[in-house]
Amino acid sequence: MMTNDPLSTTFAALADPTRRALLVRLAQGEATVNQLAEPFDISLQAVSKHRKVLEGAGLITRSRDAQSRPCRFESAPLENAVEWIERNRQIWTERFDQLETHLKNNQHGNQETAP
Amino acid sequence: MMTNDPLSTTFAALADPTRRALLVRLAQGEATVNQLAEPFDISLQAVSKHRKVLEGAGLITRSRDAQSRPCRFESAPLENAVEWIERNRQIWTERFDQLETHLKNNQHGNQETAP
Repeated sequence: MMTNDPLSTTFAALADPTRRALLVRLAQGEATVNQLAEPFDISLQAVSKHRKVLEGAGLITRSRDAQSRPCRFESAPLENAVEWIERNRQIWTERFDQLETHLKNNQHGNQETAP
Repeated sequence: MMTNDPLSTTFAALADPTRRALLVRLAQGEATVNQLAEPFDISLQAVSKHRKVLEGAGLITRSRDAQSRPCRFESAPLENAVEWIERNRQIWTERFDQLETHLKNNQHGNQETAP
């Protein structure tokens, strides 16, 4: 099932090692598709395909000024992705803390009623 | 191109709204596949399919004790995912800070040499 919600699009774009490597490169500074392709053992066409997926997810934008149209890293979708993950990790951690407190209280109660 | 690296598997598993909703539910406590299916307007078969993807990504485990085999939220893959995202957001932020400092210094230099 294909979905178009922004969070699914972000995670799908990140689910590929080459696309993540392209993002790592772009986090260090703008680069054209030619510059991006250089260190990779893949065709310019393959890089362009990955670039389109990243652009569709809003993880990169392209300059309209220069003819070479360098790609630029965009952090907003990543912020939303981290926010979703951290929110659920927090729910999970809080539940664990509650469980621990509950077990401690129960243990304490058992000790008090022990002969 | 399908990839089997853990980070790609994690992000691919998160790239679906139903799977994320199942994880949100499991972050709040263990649940069987039947319990997971209840609030969703999808078949038990569809839930089982999503459960397998989440299990394959290590985002959930299933108890071997009970016959109902409840599913349990696992946070380790999410920690690795957040780590990857935050590392690259940090590289990007640092580069921006450097650029800002560079521009400020240049501006200061220009003012000093101005007639």
